[in-house]
Amino acid sequence: MMNTETLVTARKPTEENGAASRSADWENPRVASILSAAAKCFARKGFTATTLAEIGKELGLRKSIVHYYFASKAALIHEVQSFTYHRYLDRLKEAIRNGDGSPQQMTDALRALWDAIQSNKTGTGLNIEVWSAARRDTELKRRAAGLHRDARQVVRDALGAVASKDPARAESLATLVLAVLNGLSVTEYLEGEEAKVKDAYDAFLELLRSGATNNTAS
Amino acid sequence: MMNTETLVTARKPTEENGAASRSADWENPRVASILSAAAKCFARKGFTATTLAEIGKELGLRKSIVHYYFASKAALIHEVQSFTYHRYLDRLKEAIRNGDGSPQQMTDALRALWDAIQSNKTGTGLNIEVWSAARRDTELKRRAAGLHRDARQVVRDALGAVASKDPARAESLATLVLAVLNGLSVTEYLEGEEAKVKDAYDAFLELLRSGATNNTAS
Repeated sequence: MMNTETLVTARKPTEENGAASRSADWENPRVASILSAAAKCFARKGFTATTLAEIGKELGLRKSIVHYYFASKAALIHEVQSFTYHRYLDRLKEAIRNGDGSPQQMTDALRALWDAIQSNKTGTGLNIEVWSAARRDTELKRRAAGLHRDARQVVRDALGAVASKDPARAESLATLVLAVLNGLSVTEYLEGEEAKVKDAYDAFLELLRSGATNNTAS
Repeated sequence: MMNTETLVTARKPTEENGAASRSADWENPRVASILSAAAKCFARKGFTATTLAEIGKELGLRKSIVHYYFASKAALIHEVQSFTYHRYLDRLKEAIRNGDGSPQQMTDALRALWDAIQSNKTGTGLNIEVWSAARRDTELKRRAAGLHRDARQVVRDALGAVASKDPARAESLATLVLAVLNGLSVTEYLEGEEAKVKDAYDAFLELLRSGATNNTAS
C-alpha cells in the first residue's frame, strides 16, 4: 500500500536530491494547502484510514486535483512530514537570525520553537504515525532520520555560545533538545496537561541555560 | 477490533482497581512469558498484524492457552505495556533503594534505568505502537497516561535531593526525565546511532546533576 517508488512532486531539499525544487513547490499555495490538510487527516485517522479523496474534501477539491500534485498517497505521506518539520525549523532559524548568540537568546529561540510546535497540535499525531509506519516503510524511516539530522543542525546553530566552544557537546545537546521536544509532545498527547508539560520544558531550558553559562564562564 | 471491554486477567495495580491481582498474575511464569512474547511480536509487526496464534507460536503454545490467560488481543495489548513499564520501574526502584539520595546516586539510578531500557530494544517499538493505537483506543490511552504517572512517581523518588526541597520542581524534572527517555529512544529507533544517543543522555544527566548540586548548595 505504501509504495515508495512513486514520489514525484514537491520534494524537499536533501543532500541527495538538491535544493532547487522545494521552495517552488512548497510555495505553491495549493501544494501547501494540500500538505496542511493531509497532515490534519493523517494525524487524526492515521495513514491507512485516510484517502486522497478525504484530503481533497477538506479543501473542497476533487481527488484528481490532489492526485495531480501528488502521484500517490505514499508520495504525500513522505512529503507531509518534511513540510511540517521545515515550517518549525524556519521559525527557529528566524529566531536565531534575530539573536545575539547569548545563552538568553538560545533559550528565547528554543521557546519560540516550542510555541511553534504547540500552535500546531497535529504535529505530534503526525510524528507518531510516521514513527509507527517507519517500521514497515524504509523510505519513510530514511526520510524521518534525515529530518532529525536537519533539525539537529538548526538546533546546533541555536545553541550559539555552547556550540562554538565544543562541537561534540553541541551535537549531544542538540540531540537532547530534539528528544525533549519529541518526548514532551508525546506526554502532552497522552496526558493532555499542557501547563505541566510547559513547566517541564521551562525546567529544561533553565538547566540548559545554566549549563551554557557555566560552560562559557569556565 | 480493539474491543476494550474484555479485560479480565493479569491487571496491573492502578488507583482504580487495587493492587491485589498484579503480582500473582505477573509472577506466573507462563503469564510473564506470554507478555514478553507479545511485546516482541507487537513491536515487530504492530497490533493489527499480530494474532494470538502467532504469540503462542513464539512459545510453542497453542492459541487456546494464550486465550486462557488473556480473554482477547485487546486484553493482551492493554496489559503488555504495563508489564514492560513495570519491569523498568522495578529496576529503577532497586537502584534507588541501594542509594544514598545524593546527586551522584540520582544519576547512577537514572543510568541504570537507561541501561534497562537499552537492553530491551522492543520497548520503543511497543511504545510507538501504543501511542499510535491510543488515538483510536481511549482505554489504551488512559492506561498509557496512568503508566506515565506511575513512572513519574518513581523518577521523582530517584531525584532524591532535588525532590525533597521543591516538589513542583521535582515534578517538572520527573516529567522531563521521562520525556528525555522517550525522545531519545525514538531517536535511536529512527537513526540507530546508539553512541550518539548515549552521549546525549550523558549530557542530560550532567545538566541534571549540576542543576541538583546548585539547587542543594543554594
